[in-house]
Amino acid sequence: MSVTFSLEAYSGAARAGRLITAHGAVETPVFMPVGTVGAVKGVPHDVLEELGAQIILGNTYHLYLRPGHELVRSLGGLHRFMSWERALLTDSGGFQVFSLSGLRKITEEGVVFRSHLDGSSHLFTPERSIEIQIALGADVIMAFDECTEHPADASRTRQSMELTLRWARRSKDYFEAHKAEVPWSASGEQMLVGIVQGGMYGDLRRESAERTVEMEFAGYAIGGLSVGESREKTRDMIGETLEVLPKDKPRYVMGVGYPEEIVQYANMGVDMMDCVLPTRAARHGLLFTSEGRLNIKNTRFAQDQNPVDARCGCKVCSRYTRAYLRHLFVTGEPLAGALNTVHNLAFYLDTMRTVRHAIQLGVGSGILSGSVSSNIRPERP
Amino acid sequence: MSVTFSLEAYSGAARAGRLITAHGAVETPVFMPVGTVGAVKGVPHDVLEELGAQIILGNTYHLYLRPGHELVRSLGGLHRFMSWERALLTDSGGFQVFSLSGLRKITEEGVVFRSHLDGSSHLFTPERSIEIQIALGADVIMAFDECTEHPADASRTRQSMELTLRWARRSKDYFEAHKAEVPWSASGEQMLVGIVQGGMYGDLRRESAERTVEMEFAGYAIGGLSVGESREKTRDMIGETLEVLPKDKPRYVMGVGYPEEIVQYANMGVDMMDCVLPTRAARHGLLFTSEGRLNIKNTRFAQDQNPVDARCGCKVCSRYTRAYLRHLFVTGEPLAGALNTVHNLAFYLDTMRTVRHAIQLGVGSGILSGSVSSNIRPERP
Repeated sequence: MSVTFSLEAYSGAARAGRLITAHGAVETPVFMPVGTVGAVKGVPHDVLEELGAQIILGNTYHLYLRPGHELVRSLGGLHRFMSWERALLTDSGGFQVFSLSGLRKITEEGVVFRSHLDGSSHLFTPERSIEIQIALGADVIMAFDECTEHPADASRTRQSMELTLRWARRSKDYFEAHKAEVPWSASGEQMLVGIVQGGMYGDLRRESAERTVEMEFAGYAIGGLSVGESREKTRDMIGETLEVLPKDKPRYVMGVGYPEEIVQYANMGVDMMDCVLPTRAARHGLLFTSEGRLNIKNTRFAQDQNPVDARCGCKVCSRYTRAYLRHLFVTGEPLAGALNTVHNLAFYLDTMRTVRHAIQLGVGSGILSGSVSSNIRPERP
Repeated sequence: MSVTFSLEAYSGAARAGRLITAHGAVETPVFMPVGTVGAVKGVPHDVLEELGAQIILGNTYHLYLRPGHELVRSLGGLHRFMSWERALLTDSGGFQVFSLSGLRKITEEGVVFRSHLDGSSHLFTPERSIEIQIALGADVIMAFDECTEHPADASRTRQSMELTLRWARRSKDYFEAHKAEVPWSASGEQMLVGIVQGGMYGDLRRESAERTVEMEFAGYAIGGLSVGESREKTRDMIGETLEVLPKDKPRYVMGVGYPEEIVQYANMGVDMMDCVLPTRAARHGLLFTSEGRLNIKNTRFAQDQNPVDARCGCKVCSRYTRAYLRHLFVTGEPLAGALNTVHNLAFYLDTMRTVRHAIQLGVGSGILSGSVSSNIRPERP
């Protein structure tokens, strides 16, 4: 059985859909928590399940280095290795090896990079990335692309986009030839998602989308955003791309964003998003609430007996005060990061559930933005 | 209502009892997890409740420095501050300020010490320790004592013991005069426990016990053990002391120990124990099981799909494999410490529940040791 995607309701450009994988359904629009090495930092799986997470991300680069995809394959794939029965998505590893500046070299063949752990040399190619992702066995896997640096001029951006298109073809070809090798092949197939690049140029974004769609991927991602450009530019690039992408396939914007951004993009018709922001910010004491952001280490919370967010029903807001969470944070107690992460993920997942519900009710996107992101300060910190 | 202690069953010297506090019952013999700053490192309170923890420890030294006992008092006491409705115990702070070697000076009055955080100078006296512990408002609090260094000759040990006896008197006097000041005084009273010292000398241990008992504390602790002496010596000192302590009062051995030790001491008639061992060891990857200890970072667990302990029903053993836990540990994932801690605490708390059940069934201590601590390697690592 292949992964299927169906649309259930619309409200303006926004859509409520359902991705059916061999490891359960994912209701969209969805925010996907990042679980780099096969764990969302500090959060046990049963808590993620309680939070209603239907899909989480693993990072191919990290899992390739440790514990290694061959080990994961031999133990039955990532779901079984990490004891997570719901859906998983892996990235291609590309973004992370490109981030190893000074430690990597890009050629037509692929990317030679050095491990950040021991300096050992490795080669990722489109074929290798897909091979690793098949061995890991996430439900949704990503084509190997080049994330264009920012800023980049039009000529350089086109060159990079063309490379991504050639790599997309090679990713697809390798996947079609080897997809039966997924560790859980008896219960279904993986879904390969193509990635649109094109930097900050609307015409290149459209061309990239058109030529990626010609390759007939099961879903389409918009990559290379949130790399330093203005939020308006991010939105414009998403808008240009969405116009070209087929309406019946899932659309995934990678690496975004703030709560008000994910609401906005869902309203534009995006189905999937992921970001380290809620989890990483939590570990630094930055909490998202219905009344804006708060930095829990601030002295003004020292005696504050309110929950982080009075409108939040998560297990952290149900039990602990800001004063206690501040104390845990300033004393460096490991529980601080875990509890903060649970709250931030609850806020993100609840936000997406609210958006989905509003779409099902046919509520317009204006009301959506008003009800969900009211009082959330729009500036980036 | 004062804290009451009742005995329900005996098996040889072992006793099954019940400590009734204003914050619930504590079934003894009990192992008390350590929650230094008002949290068991990395473990949310609901998980401690699921594990069946009926009482946890806070450290007065740490809580005095951060967030400060006045702040905790103003917020209603430690239970309310940390949102923990079950019983709490605080130590006197003495042991930890003595551990600040080079940073402290002991006089008849008390101990002048420097904060490990900012070098600021502070004075702990028996009166001050009890004042802080009343402000924190744990259900069980400890007299301020001097933990005699090891090794120490008989003369030095007697001198230290005499100081502890004078400090015990001052602790008791201050407590009797101020016990109504506990933040939750409307719902009950705290219980003040006296501490027996006497180093490694049986005659001093007995004398210390006799003279402490004369002061009529509500419970008695045996301090100054597990400081580097042999396990046989620890057991002998506990034995000497228990002979003198009244049978109808709770007996608490501080800072022990390995699973086989806590079983042994419970069999000797000890009611309460605490130790950082299961929690600290967990964070270093050392796990206690019914088949002995295992170091989860060992390469031999890389592909081991068994749970940590096939005989353990904890939520970690029910879900995760040794291979996954090893992966979390070697990658430095914060979840590693949390999950390892949950398992080790489950093992300790289950062990004590098994001992208690055996006492209620009237099973002899020989069988107790056989069933609970079989295959646990007796050597210290």
